[in-house]
Amino acid sequence: VEPDASPLARYRAIRSTTEWLIDPLSAEDCAIQSMPDMSPAKWHLGHTTWFFETMILESTEAGFRPFDASFRVLFNSYYNTVGEQHPRPRRGMLSRPGLDRVRQYRSDVDRRMERPLRDGTLPEKALSALEVGLNHEQQHQELLLMDVKHLFSCNPLRPTYRPLEEPPATDPGDLTWSDFPGGSVAIGHEGNGFAFDNERPRHEILVQPFSLANRPVTCGEYLEFMADGGYRRPELWLSDGWEVADRHGWEAPLYWERDEDGTWSLLTLHGPRPVRGEEPVVHVSYYEADAFARWAGARLPQEAEWETAATSPPGEGHFLEGGSLHPAPVAPADDGSPVQLFGDVWEWTGSAYGPYPGYRPPEGALGEYNGKFMCNQMVMRGGAVVTPASHIRRTYRNFFYPHMRWQFGGIRLAR
Amino acid sequence: VEPDASPLARYRAIRSTTEWLIDPLSAEDCAIQSMPDMSPAKWHLGHTTWFFETMILESTEAGFRPFDASFRVLFNSYYNTVGEQHPRPRRGMLSRPGLDRVRQYRSDVDRRMERPLRDGTLPEKALSALEVGLNHEQQHQELLLMDVKHLFSCNPLRPTYRPLEEPPATDPGDLTWSDFPGGSVAIGHEGNGFAFDNERPRHEILVQPFSLANRPVTCGEYLEFMADGGYRRPELWLSDGWEVADRHGWEAPLYWERDEDGTWSLLTLHGPRPVRGEEPVVHVSYYEADAFARWAGARLPQEAEWETAATSPPGEGHFLEGGSLHPAPVAPADDGSPVQLFGDVWEWTGSAYGPYPGYRPPEGALGEYNGKFMCNQMVMRGGAVVTPASHIRRTYRNFFYPHMRWQFGGIRLAR
Amino acid sequence: VEPDASPLARYRAIRSTTEWLIDPLSAEDCAIQSMPDMSPAKWHLGHTTWFFETMILESTEAGFRPFDASFRVLFNSYYNTVGEQHPRPRRGMLSRPGLDRVRQYRSDVDRRMERPLRDGTLPEKALSALEVGLNHEQQHQELLLMDVKHLFSCNPLRPTYRPLEEPPATDPGDLTWSDFPGGSVAIGHEGNGFAFDNERPRHEILVQPFSLANRPVTCGEYLEFMADGGYRRPELWLSDGWEVADRHGWEAPLYWERDEDGTWSLLTLHGPRPVRGEEPVVHVSYYEADAFARWAGARLPQEAEWETAATSPPGEGHFLEGGSLHPAPVAPADDGSPVQLFGDVWEWTGSAYGPYPGYRPPEGALGEYNGKFMCNQMVMRGGAVVTPASHIRRTYRNFFYPHMRWQFGGIRLAR
Amino acid sequence: VEPDASPLARYRAIRSTTEWLIDPLSAEDCAIQSMPDMSPAKWHLGHTTWFFETMILESTEAGFRPFDASFRVLFNSYYNTVGEQHPRPRRGMLSRPGLDRVRQYRSDVDRRMERPLRDGTLPEKALSALEVGLNHEQQHQELLLMDVKHLFSCNPLRPTYRPLEEPPATDPGDLTWSDFPGGSVAIGHEGNGFAFDNERPRHEILVQPFSLANRPVTCGEYLEFMADGGYRRPELWLSDGWEVADRHGWEAPLYWERDEDGTWSLLTLHGPRPVRGEEPVVHVSYYEADAFARWAGARLPQEAEWETAATSPPGEGHFLEGGSLHPAPVAPADDGSPVQLFGDVWEWTGSAYGPYPGYRPPEGALGEYNGKFMCNQMVMRGGAVVTPASHIRRTYRNFFYPHMRWQFGGIRLAR
Repeated sequence: VEPDASPLARYRAIRSTTEWLIDPLSAEDCAIQSMPDMSPAKWHLGHTTWFFETMILESTEAGFRPFDASFRVLFNSYYNTVGEQHPRPRRGMLSRPGLDRVRQYRSDVDRRMERPLRDGTLPEKALSALEVGLNHEQQHQELLLMDVKHLFSCNPLRPTYRPLEEPPATDPGDLTWSDFPGGSVAIGHEGNGFAFDNERPRHEILVQPFSLANRPVTCGEYLEFMADGGYRRPELWLSDGWEVADRHGWEAPLYWERDEDGTWSLLTLHGPRPVRGEEPVVHVSYYEADAFARWAGARLPQEAEWETAATSPPGEGHFLEGGSLHPAPVAPADDGSPVQLFGDVWEWTGSAYGPYPGYRPPEGALGEYNGKFMCNQMVMRGGAVVTPASHIRRTYRNFFYPHMRWQFGGIRLAR
Repeated sequence: VEPDASPLARYRAIRSTTEWLIDPLSAEDCAIQSMPDMSPAKWHLGHTTWFFETMILESTEAGFRPFDASFRVLFNSYYNTVGEQHPRPRRGMLSRPGLDRVRQYRSDVDRRMERPLRDGTLPEKALSALEVGLNHEQQHQELLLMDVKHLFSCNPLRPTYRPLEEPPATDPGDLTWSDFPGGSVAIGHEGNGFAFDNERPRHEILVQPFSLANRPVTCGEYLEFMADGGYRRPELWLSDGWEVADRHGWEAPLYWERDEDGTWSLLTLHGPRPVRGEEPVVHVSYYEADAFARWAGARLPQEAEWETAATSPPGEGHFLEGGSLHPAPVAPADDGSPVQLFGDVWEWTGSAYGPYPGYRPPEGALGEYNGKFMCNQMVMRGGAVVTPASHIRRTYRNFFYPHMRWQFGGIRLAR
Repeated sequence: VEPDASPLARYRAIRSTTEWLIDPLSAEDCAIQSMPDMSPAKWHLGHTTWFFETMILESTEAGFRPFDASFRVLFNSYYNTVGEQHPRPRRGMLSRPGLDRVRQYRSDVDRRMERPLRDGTLPEKALSALEVGLNHEQQHQELLLMDVKHLFSCNPLRPTYRPLEEPPATDPGDLTWSDFPGGSVAIGHEGNGFAFDNERPRHEILVQPFSLANRPVTCGEYLEFMADGGYRRPELWLSDGWEVADRHGWEAPLYWERDEDGTWSLLTLHGPRPVRGEEPVVHVSYYEADAFARWAGARLPQEAEWETAATSPPGEGHFLEGGSLHPAPVAPADDGSPVQLFGDVWEWTGSAYGPYPGYRPPEGALGEYNGKFMCNQMVMRGGAVVTPASHIRRTYRNFFYPHMRWQFGGIRLAR
Repeated sequence: VEPDASPLARYRAIRSTTEWLIDPLSAEDCAIQSMPDMSPAKWHLGHTTWFFETMILESTEAGFRPFDASFRVLFNSYYNTVGEQHPRPRRGMLSRPGLDRVRQYRSDVDRRMERPLRDGTLPEKALSALEVGLNHEQQHQELLLMDVKHLFSCNPLRPTYRPLEEPPATDPGDLTWSDFPGGSVAIGHEGNGFAFDNERPRHEILVQPFSLANRPVTCGEYLEFMADGGYRRPELWLSDGWEVADRHGWEAPLYWERDEDGTWSLLTLHGPRPVRGEEPVVHVSYYEADAFARWAGARLPQEAEWETAATSPPGEGHFLEGGSLHPAPVAPADDGSPVQLFGDVWEWTGSAYGPYPGYRPPEGALGEYNGKFMCNQMVMRGGAVVTPASHIRRTYRNFFYPHMRWQFGGIRLAR
């Protein structure tokens, strides 16, 4: 998606990407909810459509009538301002409406959205909501892939989402460190182009001098941590993390499986295969990232540090558009500067997700988009291999609970 | 299904009935598990087929090769003798194999079953397993309808499984009592025709004189119980029942919903509609049946009493073959004798489900069919409107946990 | 307690036995609730006193005033007829009233009870309630010991309740079988002397010929079951039992602990010590008893069988009065007839606890004593080493849920 | 406790304060655990003593022998470096060791501690651990009062911990605002005197201009929030907070009870009494504090803001030494500057508890004191009415999970 394309072009491109993501899936694949945190693909299809219908058409279309009045509740995620919601943990109960009906919903809303987009008749406020809606749909593209991966991991048949010819191996090289001077720096979004409310306001913050690793931690390094008793040594762990790891019997990242010969395999959206030492470790919780960092004599970066370091053009990482749906290594930069800050894996920061000084949520329903989640979660930065490249930016703040592992979370060390 | 039809004819008839039950369902309807006790329709399709493949073809087919080796585990319900099982509460995770694939499985096994059935080459032991398999599939036909009803009840769209033109009203008349002399009576299956192991051995038992109600309790009578504080008076309840009712906030049978005007509606497989005073109450737990009986100054019958009373030809009840999928009243008998002992609702007895004196489970996998469940459950008798008429008999013992309500359970009083 | 002693003498004897049971305990020992099923000793002291105050003094004492109005709720166990109850799982929250205060309560009620008992002025109905109250207090004596044992088992210091000099070893001999002819037999209480409502009415029942083991299963025999994979072979277990055993990781009876050398120790109220092969196994659930029986090619007796067999004077078992609080072997009878039917361990029967034909609970609060528990539990017979000898009789029906292990439950085989 | 008193004097003063706190309690009061987050008073007594024995005597006493070897595990809270721990949720199972025995433990360790303190023979490192131990015991004094309050709240008799003559009413006046300029400020401990590791290192931070309320929110103001639907309006709440409040049915602060006439009472350690409009609201969770602030058009202060504002000498708040154990109002300052920043209620900040830049936990067991809890908790500042005055300071960082309410948490608004 070209960022300077017309709204209509971008609408079409993003909407059709979602359809493309559904292609390999059966109606059944799209209906099942494999854990309360995930949503069925069909629900993502409906909800992203609901967003445009509710946030734009409802207030701009003459004689607005919803495609189906019941969808207002069924596909409302968490907007109390809009009204009641079908309970999140019961999204998997909805065999009806069927996938076909939800696709009709998409077509219908697309038809009704395209008209004013073509005619250029959307008012300013709706255009602003459109930007949110497009970014919102991109977020759900990533969620959809996370969720399908989880669903397939629950199936002993180990289905493959999309086959992939393996890319040639890349050597990420040894982990090296880059020094940054810190000082009073500005972080947050500058005001040009789209950004979510939680990236604002841009503000000054004091950052102490720090060093950042030149690349994410690899599976090979993580295997060393495991071999050194990483999952059995409480002194490496936050207290809450130790409790969670113990309760769930964690002994490796999510989707890793020990083979009979003691080696490890992992599940990818392209099917199961052996773990590769050179690839970035992914599907670790904050607790595991933090414990790994402590074991390595380092720590996780603060989000201001990360954003400061990400000013220089980063080396190439992999995004959704690349076709592969599993993180892969990137060759090191000649000057040793950090690469792959963007793409492949979301990088856990040591920063609790909270409001920037002076933060104000927008008026209306969109005020519920980000602000009410500013507690108990940790900031992640940089986007992953399942993130659309056009969706990510330096100031982008993603956030997850520290125990969560089904997102594509990896580790960048700081010290 | 004519009981004296050929095995092949009966195999075809029963298998195609299952297919007919699936007709109104989408692939998504067949995939979702709405609670741990229920199974997706697709799983029922696969499991009943697995039964024939595993219990008959595996031991009789020359050069036996399974249709799909993974199905041996996926569709094994609880037979430890056969091997591992996909965990019951995770049957709803299986978007793959898809419905189409499971139907191929059915076709393939049908083809392989029909050959020896046509040629009459099945050995005695396999013919005996065939009888079990056919009765087993009939049990799953009923389960499938119970489960679809539950799934649809979780959907705020309140889907209809099959539309139905309403039958004309029948007046069941006032509840009257029939006296039975008791004495030393024989219960259990006589040895002619098929019966499950738990119906054997036939044995003598002393039954005291008793009276039995001429028909099941109606919704009208149950509404009186509710209006009289039935759900708020602990003295009417078993201690365990009171605890369960309190924890779940029960205030009416399952699938009843209070309308805004205070009247009650209920869900049927034909869609939601108002409760009718004259129809048998259904979807009550043992605890509710027992509390109702205490409130009415009566009790539930023992299974030996029920079986004794069911010797005389019963008045017509409704079964699966009748087309309606919700219990309906039956006109009283001229002589006041009990009617509707069979059909419409399974009747809770006051008998704990246990082995008859001298009971021995069969050798091999089929020994796990009934015997290992002989604890904590209560016997139900007579079959329901979702039971195939050809499946039920006087000595038939069904069993459910006393808190369960999603089966078609109703109340017959004794004293 | 002599059964033909005067009510006053029996009241005093039973009440002071309870005091004697409390002697080794500190106020703290008496206050803590170690699981929801057990009650703190202080609560037993209060509740048994509450029983006399509420069921007798309240209706017979001129100008009755309760010792403490709040105790009516605090010490009500489950009598809805009496009124509200302090929630059972929160009995351990009550640091106040303190033990001293509860003992004052006992003294006060004793004083007020003794007067009419001395004067012989209690009306018939109160005398009948007195019998219930005395038997009730004896039941709580046993419960108190069960509960203290559980509490102490939760303490890593492994406290001893009472030290005991070990009795000399007795050889119980090999297990042999006695044949019984069955036929139409009468069971239930005859009407002379005290019995609980659940032992009535006496009624005829048909019993098939059966054999009964001459003694309870020993620890040595149970160790063979364990060594033969008893806890790892699902085919030996009821389905519900297997699920419970798996969920809790059972691999031996309750209170057994594997020592570092692989041998087993067990906790007794006299402290921990090694398991002895010749002693009766105790603290097994119904599920374990049933699995053991299946492994042994036998079954558990029905309660009618047990009661039939218990007519002949039984060999000596051990009771509360004997001083030892752990089951011990008894020498076999010369004629091989069953011994130890009474005492040492409650014997699980294969009979679900239900009402006898024609059973009616008493009017009023005492109607809640037994009847409302007639579901989901199994009958146990014969009394244990913690049961007062004067409390038990042939027709006595005890009952526990099949998963429970903290009562002194053992195994008698039948076939 | 005078801060410049000798170590011995301070040891004696602090240890005897703990004894004084136990005075009103029975052995039973000291033994019971009313929820997993709280500890029995007896455990506090043992654990604080264990701290001195393990952290000081073990490494300094010639021929060290523990008072009781089992206490090393029983009274270890969470120090994996020291070894195993008795599980926290099972601290209430320990009727033994009894209270007397634990007091002997205290006396014994006191005797052994006082000798080197008198002789001045403790090495530097032990003196440093002594400081931690004394502050640690003060923390447990506050915990002990929190925990007794919770225990007594679970008792329907509503026990009083200590009677108190009510102080005369004080008018806290209307809430007013003070402006602070912000800028680059230093926070954290300067290095003189004792401070916990989590208060270090002192570092510069940019603070934007802000205003702070002159006093904590009162119950009167909180009642307005409640009357305005504060507990029923999701738009006021963080998403996690709404979920918690809904699940637990919160409709007022902890320990508030609605009287029959609709007014509110609350429990204090001096007994129950009506809520007073002028007193600071206490026992609110972070979620409630945050929702209140949003309702009031304000927010909670960041900890750097709070610490900046707390430089000027604060108005008098109430501490443990004052005798009252419930927060009370303080008269406003003449110049309108903030009062009561210290004392009465811990003030929730909007800052997630994390490490200061450059934070390093100490070596050894004491490294587990604070660092491993730096996740999922929110910082509270200023101390409460149950905090020893000598324990608190400007840089002091307390921390609790956002759902917790049993600590004395209140609300100071910022904007």
